Amino acid sequence: MSSNLIYEFCKKIFPINRSITGKGVCETLKIIQGELPSLKIHNIPTGKKCFDWNIPKEWNVNEAYIIDPDGKKICSLKDNNLHLVGYSVPVNKTIELEELEKHLHSLPGQPDAIPYITSYYKETWGFCISHNQRESLKEGNYRVIIDSSLIDGYMTYGELLIEGNSKEEIFISTYICHPSMANNEVSGPALVTFLSKFILTLNNKRYSYRIIFIPETIGSIAYLSKNLTIMKKNIIAGFNITCVGDNKNFSFMSSRDGSTLADKVALNALHSKGIKFKNFSYLQRGSDERQYCYPGVDLPVCSVMRSKYGDYDEYHTSLDNLSFISSDGLNGAFEIYRDIIEILENNFKYTNTQICEPQLGKRGLYPNISSKKTIALVRTMMNLLAYCDGKLDLINISEIIDEPFWDLVEIAKKLESNGVLKKAHNK
Amino acid sequence: MSSNLIYEFCKKIFPINRSITGKGVCETLKIIQGELPSLKIHNIPTGKKCFDWNIPKEWNVNEAYIIDPDGKKICSLKDNNLHLVGYSVPVNKTIELEELEKHLHSLPGQPDAIPYITSYYKETWGFCISHNQRESLKEGNYRVIIDSSLIDGYMTYGELLIEGNSKEEIFISTYICHPSMANNEVSGPALVTFLSKFILTLNNKRYSYRIIFIPETIGSIAYLSKNLTIMKKNIIAGFNITCVGDNKNFSFMSSRDGSTLADKVALNALHSKGIKFKNFSYLQRGSDERQYCYPGVDLPVCSVMRSKYGDYDEYHTSLDNLSFISSDGLNGAFEIYRDIIEILENNFKYTNTQICEPQLGKRGLYPNISSKKTIALVRTMMNLLAYCDGKLDLINISEIIDEPFWDLVEIAKKLESNGVLKKAHNK
Amino acid sequence: MSSNLIYEFCKKIFPINRSITGKGVCETLKIIQGELPSLKIHNIPTGKKCFDWNIPKEWNVNEAYIIDPDGKKICSLKDNNLHLVGYSVPVNKTIELEELEKHLHSLPGQPDAIPYITSYYKETWGFCISHNQRESLKEGNYRVIIDSSLIDGYMTYGELLIEGNSKEEIFISTYICHPSMANNEVSGPALVTFLSKFILTLNNKRYSYRIIFIPETIGSIAYLSKNLTIMKKNIIAGFNITCVGDNKNFSFMSSRDGSTLADKVALNALHSKGIKFKNFSYLQRGSDERQYCYPGVDLPVCSVMRSKYGDYDEYHTSLDNLSFISSDGLNGAFEIYRDIIEILENNFKYTNTQICEPQLGKRGLYPNISSKKTIALVRTMMNLLAYCDGKLDLINISEIIDEPFWDLVEIAKKLESNGVLKKAHNK
Repeated sequence: MSSNLIYEFCKKIFPINRSITGKGVCETLKIIQGELPSLKIHNIPTGKKCFDWNIPKEWNVNEAYIIDPDGKKICSLKDNNLHLVGYSVPVNKTIELEELEKHLHSLPGQPDAIPYITSYYKETWGFCISHNQRESLKEGNYRVIIDSSLIDGYMTYGELLIEGNSKEEIFISTYICHPSMANNEVSGPALVTFLSKFILTLNNKRYSYRIIFIPETIGSIAYLSKNLTIMKKNIIAGFNITCVGDNKNFSFMSSRDGSTLADKVALNALHSKGIKFKNFSYLQRGSDERQYCYPGVDLPVCSVMRSKYGDYDEYHTSLDNLSFISSDGLNGAFEIYRDIIEILENNFKYTNTQICEPQLGKRGLYPNISSKKTIALVRTMMNLLAYCDGKLDLINISEIIDEPFWDLVEIAKKLESNGVLKKAHNK
Repeated sequence: MSSNLIYEFCKKIFPINRSITGKGVCETLKIIQGELPSLKIHNIPTGKKCFDWNIPKEWNVNEAYIIDPDGKKICSLKDNNLHLVGYSVPVNKTIELEELEKHLHSLPGQPDAIPYITSYYKETWGFCISHNQRESLKEGNYRVIIDSSLIDGYMTYGELLIEGNSKEEIFISTYICHPSMANNEVSGPALVTFLSKFILTLNNKRYSYRIIFIPETIGSIAYLSKNLTIMKKNIIAGFNITCVGDNKNFSFMSSRDGSTLADKVALNALHSKGIKFKNFSYLQRGSDERQYCYPGVDLPVCSVMRSKYGDYDEYHTSLDNLSFISSDGLNGAFEIYRDIIEILENNFKYTNTQICEPQLGKRGLYPNISSKKTIALVRTMMNLLAYCDGKLDLINISEIIDEPFWDLVEIAKKLESNGVLKKAHNK
Repeated sequence: MSSNLIYEFCKKIFPINRSITGKGVCETLKIIQGELPSLKIHNIPTGKKCFDWNIPKEWNVNEAYIIDPDGKKICSLKDNNLHLVGYSVPVNKTIELEELEKHLHSLPGQPDAIPYITSYYKETWGFCISHNQRESLKEGNYRVIIDSSLIDGYMTYGELLIEGNSKEEIFISTYICHPSMANNEVSGPALVTFLSKFILTLNNKRYSYRIIFIPETIGSIAYLSKNLTIMKKNIIAGFNITCVGDNKNFSFMSSRDGSTLADKVALNALHSKGIKFKNFSYLQRGSDERQYCYPGVDLPVCSVMRSKYGDYDEYHTSLDNLSFISSDGLNGAFEIYRDIIEILENNFKYTNTQICEPQLGKRGLYPNISSKKTIALVRTMMNLLAYCDGKLDLINISEIIDEPFWDLVEIAKKLESNGVLKKAHNK
C-alpha cells in the first residue's frame, strides 16, 4: 500500500459534520458505500430501546455562529465543525459576555486549539473556541445563532457481511460519529473501507467477516442488542479499529481477557514485523471494546492503533487534523490489519497423518546424505511436525520453536500437499 | 482502639498458672466469660479418645519449690509459674545437687531467663531456672517439694457461636494453656475477647462466627473430633490468633494451601494499611494451624501475628512478659483483625444487571458533559463494572484495577442501590 | 561403580562395524546377551512396513579400500570402519581422481578427523577420509573396491523385559548402529547393559522394565509399530540413553512435554547429587526421543547425557574414540541412571492414616520433653506428614519442604511401619 488512497479518502470524509445521528453520518456512509457497494445502511428509530439505552433524537444543524459586539461573526460552524457543542439545542438570542462565557469551552493549556465537546444526553448548548480567541472577547452583547433541530428520526449505521467457507466470523468495528477530526476518527472508517475491499478480493475465504461502521457507544450497544446471539456464537476474533492515522507510534490494547485469539494474532502480527509498540491494558480502554468485552457480551476484541485516543495532545481538539495523519501512518496500520487477516486465514491446527516421524526421504522432503550439515537443514520442518498435535495452532508453534509464522505456513502447506500433515477440524 | 483495654485484660489473666488442663484454664475462661457472657464452657473427660489422641489427666499444682542447702526456698511457683515443668508429678524428697541437676532446665545463652518447659505425655518432674542462679547452686542436699496432682478430670475449653445471616462461618481460634507469658500467649485470648465483643456489635452480619478458646494441640484436636463435619461444611475462612502483643513486627503465615480466602483477605488487610510484614511459609508453622490445615482437615486457616512464636529471643521464657507487649502492639493487631472481619463481611461478588454498559447518565451516575476531564472521573466506576462478572470478588477486582478495596465497596453499594449491580449468589 | 567394567565393555564392542542392519548389530547383541542371558534377539524382515517406513535391505561388507596411483591401499575398512560410507553399494572399478573426489567426504575444519557418513535410503557409495590425506591425493587412476552386499534379510534388535510387581513400566532405549565411535555410541549400550544387570539384582521390584537395544530411528519406529498399544498403556517414565561416556559435562534434554515423571525424576537425581548440567530443550533433540515423543506416540521420555550429540567437536568423527570416553565418565552417568531407577522405585504417594496430626509420642516417634530444641528436631517428619495428602509424591514433597528425597524415603518408611502413613493407590 504505497499509494495514498486511504489518505485521500480521509480528506474526502474529513469535512463532514458527523454526530451520533443526522445527515453527517448518512453522507459518510454513502461515500463508503461508493467504495463498498455491498454495504447495507440500517436505520434505528429514535426511542427504540437497546438494552439499557434508548436511541436518542436525531440531531441536525444548518448553521451556528456568534456575532460579537463589533458585528463580527465568530465561532462559525462553517469555519470549523468543532465550534459547536455536539447536540446543541436551537438558540437565537442576544446575551452579555458574562452569560455567554457559561457556554464557552476552551483549553488554557492548548491556547490555539478548539476542543471537541458533546452533550448527547442532556439538552444544552455551547461553543468551543481557542483559548486565545476567548481571551480577546470584549464586554458587550453577543448574538447567538444555532439553527439546529432535535427530532424523532433515526440513528444510522453501515454493515458489511462477507461470507466465507465457515460461519465463524472475524469482526471489525469502526465508528463514524466525530466531526472533522483525523486520527480519531476518519482514519478508522477510511482504513476499514480499504481493508474491506482487500477482504473482498480474497479467494476461498476460510472465515466470514462482519464489518460495521457505527456511531460510538450507542451504535455498538444498538448493534449488539440486535445481533448478540449470532455474534456470541460465531465471532472468533474481533478488532475495534480507531486512531490508525498518524506515524508516531504503534499501540496495542488487549481485550478484557487479554489472551484471546484476537490478542494472540495482533501481537504475532506486530512481532513478526519487528514493530515496537506501546502496550496498553484493558484498563486504558475508551472505545467500543467497552461494550464488546463487557461481562454480558464478552467477545474477543482488541485494538491495534497508531497514537491511542487520550495518549496524544491533539486528541479531541482541532489539532487532530489532516496534517496530524499521513499516508505512511495509515498505510502502516493498514498493513498490520491486512497481516492480521492473513494470519487468521492461515493459522490452522494441523495433525500428523503418521504415528511416528514420516519418512521424508521417500517423499523428496529429506536430503539423502545424512551428515552434520544436513541435520540442521531439516530441523525447522521436523520441529513443526513434532508439535502438530491437532491442538496447537501455527501461532503457538511459531512461539514454541521460535520460527516466523509465515515460514511455518509455507512448510505446513508443503507437508500437507505431501500427505504428511492434515488440518485438524477443531477450532 | 486507642484505649488500653486489651492490655489491661492481658494484665488480668497473665498471672494465672495455666496448663492444658486444670484450674488455670477454668479461671481464665471465667474471666473471658465476664466479658462475653454468651461464651459456653465445655468439659471433655480424661481418657476420651479424640482421633489419634486421648484427653490427658487433669493436672493441678498447689505449690512447688526447692529448699537449698542453706535452707533458702528457691524456684518457687509463687515467684514465677515458669519455675515448674508443666505436668510435673508430685515430689517430696531430699536429693543431692548431682541428682537435682538432672531435673533442672536453663538457658546458657540467656542466663537471666527462666525457660518454659512442659512434659504432658511422659510422667516426670523438673524445675526451670535462670542459668545464672543455676551456676550459683552449691553442693549439698536439696529438698524438693511439688504438691501437684494428676487425676481423671477434664480438659476445658470455651466456645462462642455467633449467628449471622448465612450458615457460612468465619472461624477464630486462640489458645489458653501457657502460664504467665505475654506475647505467646495472653495477647491471643485477650485480643480474641475484644474482637468477639466487636463482632457482637455488628448489625446484620453476613456470616456466622465460630470462636474458640482452647488448649493448644490437644484442644484443637479434641474440638475438631467433635465438630469436623460442620466445620468442613461451613467455614470459609479462619484465623489462628496468637502472638499479637508486641510492637516490633507484623508477621503473616499462610495456610498450607497458601491461596485460600483467609490468606487473600489477610494480605489485603495488611496491604491496604501499607503495613510491612515478615512473610512466613506454612513450613514455619507451629500452632493449631497444624491441625486445621492437616490433610484430613484442610481448613482455610492462616495467621496474622506481631512477633511470631520462635522468631523472637524472649519466646518461651520468662522474658516474654508484660513489658514485652504493649497497648500499641495489641491495638495494631486488633485493627488488622477488625479490618479482616469487615473486609470479609463486604467482599461480595457482583453481577451486572445489564448486558452492555448501563446508561449511567439517566441514573445520575455520569456527568452529562463528556470531555477529556470527565472521562477520567468515572473511570474507577466503569472499571469496577467491567469486572463484575459474578466470579471475581471485590478483593480480586481491587487487585486487577489497582484501586483500594473500600473505595470499591462504596461504589458497588451505590451501583447496587441504583440497580446496576446485583450480588452474585455463588460463594 | 569404581571399577572399569563398563569401559572394558566399551572396548569390546567398539571395533565392530555396526550399521542399522547386518552382522555388526548381531555380533554386538550376542556380546550383550553374554552379560544379559535373558535378552531376546528379534529379527524383522526387509520390506516389512512399520508405520510410514519399510525395513531396508540388510547391508554387509567384507572389505573396502582404494588403491592409489602408487599402488598403495588407502581408506581401508580394516584401518577404520568410518572410511566407508554406510550402506555403500558394491563397487569394483578404476576411476580418475576427479571422479573419485565426488565420492569422498572430509572435514576441512578438522583435517585429522575421518567423518562419519551414511546413506541408508539412497543407493550410492563413498569413502570418508581425513582432510589432510585427501589433500595429498595425486592425479591418476584409483582402483575402488567395495565388497558389500545389499540383500533381502533382517533388521535385528534386542529386547529385555523384566517383570516387577506392577504392570507399569520403566522404559529404557539405547542404540547399536554406529560403527567404532565411543561416546556416540558404544557408551550407550555398554551403560544400559550394566544398568540392566543392576535392575535384575533388585528384589521386589515395584515396576516392570522394558529395555531395548535397537538401530536408531528405523529401530525405534519398528519397535513402536509392534508395541505401541502396550507401551502407551504401561510406560510411566522412559529414558533414551546415549552419549554417556565422556567426563566433560552432564547434559539434560527434556521430553517434548517437559514436565513428565521422567523429567521430574531425572532432574531430582541430578539436583540431589548437586550436579551442574547443560539444559537442552526438546528442540535440540536428535535421537529416538524424536519417535518416542512424537505426537501420535507421546511417551514420557527424556535423556540424561554427558556431552550431548552435536554438542562436542569430536561428534560423528573418528575422534570420538576410546580416549574420548573414560571410566569416570561412564561410571558418573551410570550412577545417575541407577539413582533414577531407585528414585522411581521409592517415589510413592502416601496418605495419612489420621485425620489430625498423629500422636507421635505414644509411638516413640516424638521426644517427650518439648523445648525450643526438640521443636526443630521433629520438623522434617511433621512437614512430610503435613503434605502426605495422597496426591503429592515424595519428589513433590521434597521440593516443597526442601529436604533431600532420600531423607524423606527413610522417614516415610518409618512412619509407614508405625501405621501413621499408608501408600496411596493412585499413580
